[in-house]
Amino acid sequence: MTTSPPIADWQELAKSKRDSVFAKIPKAWLLPFSQTSQYTETSTLSVLDVPRTCGILTEKELDITENHDATELVNMMSMGDLKSVEVVTAFCKRAAIAQQCVNCLTEIMFDEAMARARECDEFLEMEGKVMGPLHGLPISLKDSFNVKGVQATIAFVSFISRPPSATNSVLVDILHSAGAVFYCKTNLPQTMMSADSHNNVFGRTLNPHNLSLTAGGSTGGEGALLAMRGSAMGVTTDIAGSNRIPALCCGISSIKPTASRIPFAGGVAPGRLGSPGSILPGIGPCGRSVRDHSLFLKTVLDAHPWLLDPHTLNTPWRTAEPFTKSLRFGLIRGCKERPLHPPIARALHTTATRLKAAGHTIVLLDEKIPDLYRSALLAFRYFLLDPKKTPLTHLQASGEPPVPSLQTCTFRELDGWEPSLDGLWDMNVERAGILQKYHGLMVGERLDAILMCGYQGIAPRHDTYGLPIYTVLQNLLNYPAGILTCGKASREADAAFVEEGRVYEPAYEPEACEGVPAHVQIVGKPMMDEELVEVMKVVERILKESE
Amino acid sequence: MTTSPPIADWQELAKSKRDSVFAKIPKAWLLPFSQTSQYTETSTLSVLDVPRTCGILTEKELDITENHDATELVNMMSMGDLKSVEVVTAFCKRAAIAQQCVNCLTEIMFDEAMARARECDEFLEMEGKVMGPLHGLPISLKDSFNVKGVQATIAFVSFISRPPSATNSVLVDILHSAGAVFYCKTNLPQTMMSADSHNNVFGRTLNPHNLSLTAGGSTGGEGALLAMRGSAMGVTTDIAGSNRIPALCCGISSIKPTASRIPFAGGVAPGRLGSPGSILPGIGPCGRSVRDHSLFLKTVLDAHPWLLDPHTLNTPWRTAEPFTKSLRFGLIRGCKERPLHPPIARALHTTATRLKAAGHTIVLLDEKIPDLYRSALLAFRYFLLDPKKTPLTHLQASGEPPVPSLQTCTFRELDGWEPSLDGLWDMNVERAGILQKYHGLMVGERLDAILMCGYQGIAPRHDTYGLPIYTVLQNLLNYPAGILTCGKASREADAAFVEEGRVYEPAYEPEACEGVPAHVQIVGKPMMDEELVEVMKVVERILKESE
Repeated sequence: MTTSPPIADWQELAKSKRDSVFAKIPKAWLLPFSQTSQYTETSTLSVLDVPRTCGILTEKELDITENHDATELVNMMSMGDLKSVEVVTAFCKRAAIAQQCVNCLTEIMFDEAMARARECDEFLEMEGKVMGPLHGLPISLKDSFNVKGVQATIAFVSFISRPPSATNSVLVDILHSAGAVFYCKTNLPQTMMSADSHNNVFGRTLNPHNLSLTAGGSTGGEGALLAMRGSAMGVTTDIAGSNRIPALCCGISSIKPTASRIPFAGGVAPGRLGSPGSILPGIGPCGRSVRDHSLFLKTVLDAHPWLLDPHTLNTPWRTAEPFTKSLRFGLIRGCKERPLHPPIARALHTTATRLKAAGHTIVLLDEKIPDLYRSALLAFRYFLLDPKKTPLTHLQASGEPPVPSLQTCTFRELDGWEPSLDGLWDMNVERAGILQKYHGLMVGERLDAILMCGYQGIAPRHDTYGLPIYTVLQNLLNYPAGILTCGKASREADAAFVEEGRVYEPAYEPEACEGVPAHVQIVGKPMMDEELVEVMKVVERILKESE
Repeated sequence: MTTSPPIADWQELAKSKRDSVFAKIPKAWLLPFSQTSQYTETSTLSVLDVPRTCGILTEKELDITENHDATELVNMMSMGDLKSVEVVTAFCKRAAIAQQCVNCLTEIMFDEAMARARECDEFLEMEGKVMGPLHGLPISLKDSFNVKGVQATIAFVSFISRPPSATNSVLVDILHSAGAVFYCKTNLPQTMMSADSHNNVFGRTLNPHNLSLTAGGSTGGEGALLAMRGSAMGVTTDIAGSNRIPALCCGISSIKPTASRIPFAGGVAPGRLGSPGSILPGIGPCGRSVRDHSLFLKTVLDAHPWLLDPHTLNTPWRTAEPFTKSLRFGLIRGCKERPLHPPIARALHTTATRLKAAGHTIVLLDEKIPDLYRSALLAFRYFLLDPKKTPLTHLQASGEPPVPSLQTCTFRELDGWEPSLDGLWDMNVERAGILQKYHGLMVGERLDAILMCGYQGIAPRHDTYGLPIYTVLQNLLNYPAGILTCGKASREADAAFVEEGRVYEPAYEPEACEGVPAHVQIVGKPMMDEELVEVMKVVERILKESE
């Protein structure tokens, strides 16, 4: 427990932090107040078109940000068809606009980014070669990554008084060496343990598809920024779904790799170091295309991250061959406690149907897997193993109150539950049993992947996301998993998937859903991130072809 | 705690188990009582020559067991130059003799082995190809591995009443599929947490070089059996040195790979399942040559063990190229609490000198590493994390007393220490600090390996081994490590390495040491077991050349 007194004027402190970030947006990129004042958490507006209609971006900048994935942008810069300065300018502008619409940023580094972009351009010109496989590419980072000279408050008021980071996170160093340009950091939930990216320092990130909906968490700032096309590639962490929840809420794509493959060292954590729990964070990208994820993962592993972080496994990136064979997918259609909302049931059904039509095999797993709700309950016990309740002490240190969603993203069954060392042994045995079951299915059914949802619905209203039953499973198992966007909620098309008498949690509201992206989740096999990428490419192609 | 009453006649039960094993030795392979009655734990006899002098083995069987490593035996069997029946007969005979000299076996499966050997020979004859890369090779197993139809009491009296194993350990299945022949299981310490392979069921394993010395533990049966050349390849587990201590005590070679590479699933553990500790067991081979270890590791990993054990990492065996470059070795010469006895100081000095002479570089690490004694103390706290003290309940279940060495293989500093969940977080932070230090040295000094001892002395007297300071380190770090034998203690040659005023622990007794093998330990980098094998081959060659 902290002994320092609460901060009497914590609201002032938070405001001054927010203001200092906002002040870094060039005046020319500001939207009129008459416009931004409409962008509230109760509005149902979509703001996806604002960057195109606001007049701040040139046609070329609109093209740069809208019509190319990161892989293509890097290729164009490497060939000299685009300058990094042009690309970075375009994404800085668009990120600034996104910030004014959906409040997705925590730190702005536009000046540093422009200097770095010039450095990349000059390097290419002088040396006749690229900085690295991410040459000149603007990359956005979750606030928890350290960038030298920039704060990493992770939205705790009590962290605002900390000095700027003295060093980079290991991953930031690696991406920098590969030629990346850092231009902003993005918003997250208080304590990171909620699916609403909402906190007392930076406020709440809104969903660009419908501002009254959540952008997800904990990497919600990335999700919203990418949906606004204010980033080409974002970097996230995931211990219960933080990489995947924003992706599925915002209609983008992401991958959480097997833990310990991408380095976590040198970042800021909301909790205590030294967890004896069996769940480790997976660090992964979010973006627009699976090949971008592959570019990120290969680039990081080719840099031998195990030399820089003792907790990263020395397992080089294996280039998996694109699949030409027929694949075998397990299919999980959900659990009774959190039945799938019609748009997600349709997305899963559509995907499975198209995969079958393309010659792949679907194996129904619903009756064969351990209880999903109980598995998630076990996972959440691992998140409560700290007797010191460190994240709460960070709140108490300033006196700031908890945000509402902290209360909704928790199991009522665990109210008053206290961890014990003896109980932890039993938890590990329970986990081993669950692992054995899934492993048996993966091997016994010769599955290449599992197809399931990452959440029972599309992005729900703020503070109603509830429990991440369908994403925390892959953390409990330490299986890699990714999200692909799959169509959009449509009252008409979804009607066939409404089950009479079902109690949906949270409520299914067809009118709030309309036009908001649906998704599927693809779960791979542990350490086979390379193969998961290839499976996701197969699914991505099939979904795109039928769009 | 158990609720069943102690077993009134536990001594009888243990004796009947011992007798039933002994009864499986064919009469023709028995040594006269007048001879075996001399083989006591207080005798200083060497029994290494008994197999050659007792007249039970033919000349060809002596050749098979003495003049070839496992790799060569497999090659000869694969070419048809030897039958598996011949090889297995030779090793069964020699194991039977070893058992009568040094008491190294727990289970005898000679009949099953002969049947299996015939099966291998017939397969080769009929199919014109080998069963697998271990075709026809007799392999001995630590008692904790399950072999279907055979008991795995791990020397708890209370486990004697358990039925024979219903299934094989995963590793046993893999080795079987590769063509191995199982013919015996080997002795270990009560609870496995001691360096003396001594228990109330099977008694004490003696060191063939000098019966008054320990054979080491916990895989002491393997060490003694291999030193007697009663096995060509043994399989061990290692959580504090159990693979390496018997090797260094008995003058053989061994490798403990990175944990989670070789499957552990399906074995019998002395403790509770579900440990939340940060130390995982490494499973590895012991034998006569580094290329044999390589054969074992490659064979197991080529069998995709991750398909059979969810806790085994999916990281295929990479074939590392033999080193042609000059290597960089860190050198650790020990700690003040356990100074190196003269024979071991000489072995290290000799090895380092020869490596330098061969063009390799030695970097002294003594002043740069975290305190070795404290690191071991931390490791031992991980071994005491079970509030239920499960191994002791297995003793209480029968009423058998603890063996003496359980008291010597423990830190006095931990008397009365009770684990706590809160403390476990701090332990993990302490471990991370130690890991960071070694990682920094490995990377910063561009080391290929570390050269150090595995124990401060040669095999000490029974029940005096004490703490495994120099082997538990690699478990704490999860670094792979192996033992190579390096000359023999010699009062004359060692004299130059006696440091006046040093307090050796246990006592240095030159006369008891004479002629007993010395050793060095080579520590590799995590997940780079393939490279460790190649480094060990370099050192093995240099040591052999100068023999």
